[in-house]
Amino acid sequence: MQLTQPLHKSLDQCPDKVATVFGKRQQSWRQLVTRVSRLAGALQQLGVAKGDRVAMLGMNSDRYLEYLYGVLWGGAVIAPLNVRWSALEIAYALDDCDARVLFVDDAFRPMIDALRKHAKALQTIVYVGECEAPPGTLAYETLLAEAAPADDARCGGDDLAVLLYTGGTTGKPKGVMLSHINLLSNILGSLLMVPRDELAVPGLHAAPPFHVAGLGHILQFSLRLGTHVLLPSFEPGAVLETIERHRVAETFLVPTMLRMLLDHPDFSKRDLSSLRMLRYGASPMDTALLERALGELPGVRFAQAYGMTELSPTITVLTPHYHTAEGRAAGKLMSAGVPVPLAEVRVVDGNDVPLPPGKVGEIVARGPMVMKGYWNQPGQTAEALRNGWMHTGDAGYIDQDGFLFVVDRIKDMIVTGGENVYSAEVEDAILQLPQVSQCAVIGVPDEKWGERVHAVIVLKPGETLDQDALVAHCRSLIAGFKCPRSMELRDELPMSGAGKLLKFKLREPYWKDRNRQVG
Amino acid sequence: MQLTQPLHKSLDQCPDKVATVFGKRQQSWRQLVTRVSRLAGALQQLGVAKGDRVAMLGMNSDRYLEYLYGVLWGGAVIAPLNVRWSALEIAYALDDCDARVLFVDDAFRPMIDALRKHAKALQTIVYVGECEAPPGTLAYETLLAEAAPADDARCGGDDLAVLLYTGGTTGKPKGVMLSHINLLSNILGSLLMVPRDELAVPGLHAAPPFHVAGLGHILQFSLRLGTHVLLPSFEPGAVLETIERHRVAETFLVPTMLRMLLDHPDFSKRDLSSLRMLRYGASPMDTALLERALGELPGVRFAQAYGMTELSPTITVLTPHYHTAEGRAAGKLMSAGVPVPLAEVRVVDGNDVPLPPGKVGEIVARGPMVMKGYWNQPGQTAEALRNGWMHTGDAGYIDQDGFLFVVDRIKDMIVTGGENVYSAEVEDAILQLPQVSQCAVIGVPDEKWGERVHAVIVLKPGETLDQDALVAHCRSLIAGFKCPRSMELRDELPMSGAGKLLKFKLREPYWKDRNRQVG
Repeated sequence: MQLTQPLHKSLDQCPDKVATVFGKRQQSWRQLVTRVSRLAGALQQLGVAKGDRVAMLGMNSDRYLEYLYGVLWGGAVIAPLNVRWSALEIAYALDDCDARVLFVDDAFRPMIDALRKHAKALQTIVYVGECEAPPGTLAYETLLAEAAPADDARCGGDDLAVLLYTGGTTGKPKGVMLSHINLLSNILGSLLMVPRDELAVPGLHAAPPFHVAGLGHILQFSLRLGTHVLLPSFEPGAVLETIERHRVAETFLVPTMLRMLLDHPDFSKRDLSSLRMLRYGASPMDTALLERALGELPGVRFAQAYGMTELSPTITVLTPHYHTAEGRAAGKLMSAGVPVPLAEVRVVDGNDVPLPPGKVGEIVARGPMVMKGYWNQPGQTAEALRNGWMHTGDAGYIDQDGFLFVVDRIKDMIVTGGENVYSAEVEDAILQLPQVSQCAVIGVPDEKWGERVHAVIVLKPGETLDQDALVAHCRSLIAGFKCPRSMELRDELPMSGAGKLLKFKLREPYWKDRNRQVG
Repeated sequence: MQLTQPLHKSLDQCPDKVATVFGKRQQSWRQLVTRVSRLAGALQQLGVAKGDRVAMLGMNSDRYLEYLYGVLWGGAVIAPLNVRWSALEIAYALDDCDARVLFVDDAFRPMIDALRKHAKALQTIVYVGECEAPPGTLAYETLLAEAAPADDARCGGDDLAVLLYTGGTTGKPKGVMLSHINLLSNILGSLLMVPRDELAVPGLHAAPPFHVAGLGHILQFSLRLGTHVLLPSFEPGAVLETIERHRVAETFLVPTMLRMLLDHPDFSKRDLSSLRMLRYGASPMDTALLERALGELPGVRFAQAYGMTELSPTITVLTPHYHTAEGRAAGKLMSAGVPVPLAEVRVVDGNDVPLPPGKVGEIVARGPMVMKGYWNQPGQTAEALRNGWMHTGDAGYIDQDGFLFVVDRIKDMIVTGGENVYSAEVEDAILQLPQVSQCAVIGVPDEKWGERVHAVIVLKPGETLDQDALVAHCRSLIAGFKCPRSMELRDELPMSGAGKLLKFKLREPYWKDRNRQVG
């Protein structure tokens, strides 16, 4: 199984069909494959050998897609970088995987000097911008024009295809190694769970390709020989306009993005009748939002995918049926669905013993979508993959019907007086206070209870809140032992470059002389 | 990717659901996995090591399914044998793959002595019959009862999983080597082409598991965690009764079997409302039969799969749409459909150069479903897989819309006066004569035309036919150069054990001193 196979198929089956649409630019599959094979040839001339890592820092585009397939076609490994990271973080990732060639687009032109300074392995920068290439970089179009097309190196199977850097919430970023089989397993399993009458439809890619969900969406539409419609990033007005203009049938988003689409002034003005399917991830969809979406987009089916980068990413899917008015009666909308055909999913205790239905433990998974490991991190790899299962770090339970419910990150669970408290549940309660803008609930050391529930809160401008009011509010919603026993007010919460809350930074001052038991 | 993975999933997801139904016997997935792991343990005690071949000669049953998974669980290779073969042919296959352990059921008890005599590698016979085990064989249930369960050897990916003996139409049988990925690619690609709203439904297996289609159907329903309903063989009355009794949703058949079902006196008496999908193969479905089937089975969708053992087997699928009254207007019913997502399919000339739409050449395929090769036949393997493509030996063309039409076996095409004649087309014309029972059209040497079209005909009892009447009839249906220039009458045609016509035997006497150019 090879990620480049769809390109070969396209030459036989639909060479003149539109392969990519980006702004006013379109190209056929034949044109795409020509550029991809030239890029592979250019990379080989630059000394990139089979298995070498080639990085990219840029917004989503047709050129990004060419980079993905050009690198794979040449037998090398793609390393798409998080565009929200600082130059130092990017340089860390580049050096960690010894990437000597980096692609950069217009948006990151200002970062080039800093990357040159800090990334020691970096030798060649290919400039894929629309503007003139800065001094010392190679202009992408010149590179392609001068290159001889290369044959597909025909890597596949267990060969390493992708390095995706994750983390930052718990320390240094780790490079997740995914193979061709890993990513294809994800695509095939996900598609089997949510059947489509037609595979080769236009799909919109607005999620960033450095996230496994965005990358997987691109790879999936190639396999389907569907037209790739690409936007640089998620901008609701542009998404609505693009769906109408290119008769987009499917896209991937997170629930917040769906809300932004529905709230946008253009929503009612656009013809969205081509939309057939919205896949979403990152969190369940609340009923109010879903009902609104079903009402406003009557022809659209919804499906949720749950997983993580290390799982390529999907291990469970909540199918369209459970989103319909009829299916919602089953009460599964807040679940992550059931395992895809190629994934084994369990909830286990600290000794990896499976727990009975309803019991909360760590979600673990086994199957062909489990990563090869963390780049150059045999210790962390062995830890994550102990006993042959990928340990997600997510806490959850499986109900009597086999549906997975995700309740918290294991590390964010608080054990107080022998009771488990899921920080997410307490945060949900606190966020219902009108004064509160953001909050994070953590466990801090407590002589009597082991840990106690502690709330870190950011108030809206001009608001006030004290411990008594907080507890009184929480007690009206959740059990007494779950209510915060202490609180602090802050101006902001520590976030990662990817916009994830860094709870370990909140916990650090409380635990610096102690060893916290988790999991 | 592992063929045994569904068994592990079943223990987590549906351990108490019915896994197999055979006659009055049912067992749950938990029971099935227990027996499978015990069988693997027993095989290891018998000295079967990873990669060893374990053969079976028997009719389809729940025990056959246990054999398939028990061997794979133990890390060995399954070799299901053609039940229509003679003892000498079976012995040839057993020795060819050095199978030291053979499973035999009641139906083949009479063959045991002959197999012992002729199969030199054979050491152990496991008797899986319902009757008492014959002397010198091991009783299956005793073997299981005394064995310790083994852990799954967790073979997968490119590991050899299955050896299927094919051929006999052109010489000695060849063992086709299929890996886990080969077979799983077939299942995943086929399922993607014909989406199902529900995967875990009861599937009826009436096709023999020594044919790749029958075997693939079993493996597919495991992946779907659907209940396996097994019949020893295709018997129309039993099929109808079983569909009703076990609410079967899907099965696989060939068009002839469908006709037998529709013609059966019980057809109208049985409740077949559970049927959702009929997959068929081996040949297209004629319009009259399909229209009748659609009328009599209004809730059923039809899908055709085309391929061969060496392709695990499916490379193209004709989807349900083209079988509906509306879809038939597209005129694709006589085609084999379009390539599945994981298969590259081409029609090429004798130099492997792709031919334009409409031109007849050899059908070739590439992708993860292509066999590993022929067992111990590096020369024939290299020939079949030359230039990286599996050469099917089938002649066909791809139309402007990308649909594959299969017209003949390459070896059966006749080149006469520079024109290609497809024997199948001539045979179709001859078979419309009411006097004719069977016929075979071959090319024989001709001084003037290179080859000439020659018909070998079996008449119905008491009928007569001469060359003039034959040609007059054919000329009313097909072009003059396609009409037989000579004919012979016979009492029967030479058939293989699998019921395939052996045209090479018909050609032999004409070509014995010459070298026939084909392909």
